[in-house]
Amino acid sequence: MHYKLLIIIIACFFNSAYSQNDSVFIRQIYNEALSNGESYENLRSLCKDIGARITGSAEAEMAVNWGEKKMNSYKFDKVYKLPVKVPHWERGTKEAGWIKTNKGEYLKVNLLALGGSIGTNGIIDEEVIMFSTLDELKNADATKINGKIVFINQHMDEKQIQTFRAYGGCYAIRGYGAVEASKKGAIAVIIRSLAIPQDDHPHTGTMSYSDDVQKIPAAALSTNASNKLADILNSSSAHFVLEMDCRDYPDVISYNVVAEITGAENANNIITFGGHLDSWDTGEGAHDDGAGIAHTLEALRILKELGYKPKNTLRLVFFMNEENGNRGGMGYAKWAKEQEQENHILALESDRGGFAPRGFSMDGDREQLKLLASFEPLFKTYDLHIFDKGHSGVDIGPLKEQFKNIPLVGFVPDSQRYFDFHHSPNDVFENVNKRELELGSAAITSILYLFDKNL
Amino acid sequence: MHYKLLIIIIACFFNSAYSQNDSVFIRQIYNEALSNGESYENLRSLCKDIGARITGSAEAEMAVNWGEKKMNSYKFDKVYKLPVKVPHWERGTKEAGWIKTNKGEYLKVNLLALGGSIGTNGIIDEEVIMFSTLDELKNADATKINGKIVFINQHMDEKQIQTFRAYGGCYAIRGYGAVEASKKGAIAVIIRSLAIPQDDHPHTGTMSYSDDVQKIPAAALSTNASNKLADILNSSSAHFVLEMDCRDYPDVISYNVVAEITGAENANNIITFGGHLDSWDTGEGAHDDGAGIAHTLEALRILKELGYKPKNTLRLVFFMNEENGNRGGMGYAKWAKEQEQENHILALESDRGGFAPRGFSMDGDREQLKLLASFEPLFKTYDLHIFDKGHSGVDIGPLKEQFKNIPLVGFVPDSQRYFDFHHSPNDVFENVNKRELELGSAAITSILYLFDKNL
Repeated sequence: MHYKLLIIIIACFFNSAYSQNDSVFIRQIYNEALSNGESYENLRSLCKDIGARITGSAEAEMAVNWGEKKMNSYKFDKVYKLPVKVPHWERGTKEAGWIKTNKGEYLKVNLLALGGSIGTNGIIDEEVIMFSTLDELKNADATKINGKIVFINQHMDEKQIQTFRAYGGCYAIRGYGAVEASKKGAIAVIIRSLAIPQDDHPHTGTMSYSDDVQKIPAAALSTNASNKLADILNSSSAHFVLEMDCRDYPDVISYNVVAEITGAENANNIITFGGHLDSWDTGEGAHDDGAGIAHTLEALRILKELGYKPKNTLRLVFFMNEENGNRGGMGYAKWAKEQEQENHILALESDRGGFAPRGFSMDGDREQLKLLASFEPLFKTYDLHIFDKGHSGVDIGPLKEQFKNIPLVGFVPDSQRYFDFHHSPNDVFENVNKRELELGSAAITSILYLFDKNL
Repeated sequence: MHYKLLIIIIACFFNSAYSQNDSVFIRQIYNEALSNGESYENLRSLCKDIGARITGSAEAEMAVNWGEKKMNSYKFDKVYKLPVKVPHWERGTKEAGWIKTNKGEYLKVNLLALGGSIGTNGIIDEEVIMFSTLDELKNADATKINGKIVFINQHMDEKQIQTFRAYGGCYAIRGYGAVEASKKGAIAVIIRSLAIPQDDHPHTGTMSYSDDVQKIPAAALSTNASNKLADILNSSSAHFVLEMDCRDYPDVISYNVVAEITGAENANNIITFGGHLDSWDTGEGAHDDGAGIAHTLEALRILKELGYKPKNTLRLVFFMNEENGNRGGMGYAKWAKEQEQENHILALESDRGGFAPRGFSMDGDREQLKLLASFEPLFKTYDLHIFDKGHSGVDIGPLKEQFKNIPLVGFVPDSQRYFDFHHSPNDVFENVNKRELELGSAAITSILYLFDKNL
């Protein structure tokens, strides 16, 4: 039995969508992305000309205008904005933390308030009690915790190969640490940043309160600061001194920003794709999710530039508010449902950073997954190898509630460096590699082309 | 037909070496590399405690001692050095270049002498003539070139997905540019650095002279400097001013550094693996090839740490002089041939940087390639997907001349960022990611284990 025979068997098995024309067109897409690509410059502009753009901020509104202007500059068939009411939380100007040893020494540490946290209303200076996991906190005796600051030093599991799994396994300390600590009478919670490297960057991110539990301030320490605090607490008692004046403001109106190339055959069949325009308020939101914005804007630009006439309508959406509420994602899905003439046939998101592409994952049924898998041979030359069932994206997730059978696709870049940067001051343009970003744009453009042709 | 059936077909086809025990042991290897790994600290030490270590330098000798000491610290069965006579070229202290416009303005540029170049013996100040490719230079009229400085502005092809192919396509301007320019009477050659990014880092590397052609000085400009010079030359004439006092010194004795774990069943069956200890004299040789040293040292450490008793002798070699002569690689192959009792059954090299692993390529026959391919299913969880015919490594290459049937294996990490750093001041420890390096170590350890078991 020869390799060729095996290839034929596989090809038959997957009912391959492969054709010579497809492979030629995909090569053109890659050439355009790598030789005349605009994604890197667009990302630079979003990161450097605007910067961090948390929902509700002036920068978020600048980003909305930036997105609309960029889309108009490419002369897509339609460009419009969909209003959405979004939360407005601000970090404020005071934000600092110190370990105070039992000898009265102060050791300043790097920290960031978690998104949505209340402030401290002045300085808190209280004994700190450490737990190595959230479960340990849940099982602890409340009398030992009451009136203290809780420190949850749970580590992301570096043994996980896919770093998003390690993140998933640790997410609860950030999401629910404040509620669990408050239930036992803690006056504040500080957590180890959700990051694998040992460094000085704190990582923020969204957290929750519960209506039936007192709200307490919540912050994340850098992993180095967490190690230092843990070392001290392993041999003695210590206080933690915390000051933050972050707070919520009333909701404001912002926008999802939309561009379309109208489908030549089935204008009412909609393929939605995009990333999120908002970011956290630290760093520049370069990987999260400037890269997704740059990728997907580039995809529509390249298809237009190459003269491709889509069968179905290709709708690019820059979502607002993925980070702390997903109002843009939910609002878009609801709005889409109201457009009664529209058939939503697929959605795709890029929100895992601007790293070298590995493939695509899909939330879909067996037939839909078969179609995805049938594209794999076309991408072998481009080093893509993941065409499997899996997570899609937060912004497009709500579409599944409105359209039960819609396949949702997530772009999967290499995940190894993502949590070095995620939600930290370190998520800046300089940490995105030009070629890796461009290859992501090309991969996304190519798969949108294939889905459009085959749906 | 179900997926499971397909998997069975593939498994039969490839005569899979897969077993439950293998997958458990490989998981242990990854856990050790990711949780207790020493490759990152070893790389830090090589880069920061020693630094750049060009063959013949004091640093290269420090690196030899460093390697021997490290190997001894791990208490491998044998540690020894194999002497090898190596070249000794030095950059010297003067090294500078300026564009001199036809208005007499000087514009300083970043450049590096190519490795092996002669010096300028004072300052050269002469008109420069540009060629966009080496072929254009070869076809040019010598009368236009005679007495001038030749500038070859050939770009690496950014459309190539595998950057090593783009490098291969451009290598000749560095390797043979001086000979071709000198044939037509040029007094010096300057080339565009072999790099894809537009930045200020010049990239050195080896070059050749020919006995029947006058030797002329050769240097590489950064890509930004090349763009600037090209812009100027596109609209006017210009001079280039060059000063370098690099030179050759007499050969010196250096060493390949070797460690072994003796094979429990077939001590005379040798599996050679390693990287090269020397680097260029700029940056810290972090990716090239500190990463390969750290990877392969870690592989032997992990196998010992996990109590693995190899069937065959595992021989780790830190080669000397890959960059400018390959005397270590040639010397080792010759020495190996002289050890008449030894059967050389496989060699593996890591010399493509410390990036996220993609797989392994092999210079081998059909049966050997089948064995490699049979390992692929074991690595799916670890995101490795390349198990194909291909390049192995410069240091182990000469083994093929001595042992006709030996399979040679190259570790294949992601190549996208490699030529951002290669042979430049930018190839420093900070540009190696800890997880990516550790995953490389784990992949190499795992495949050495599999080859040992199956050979």
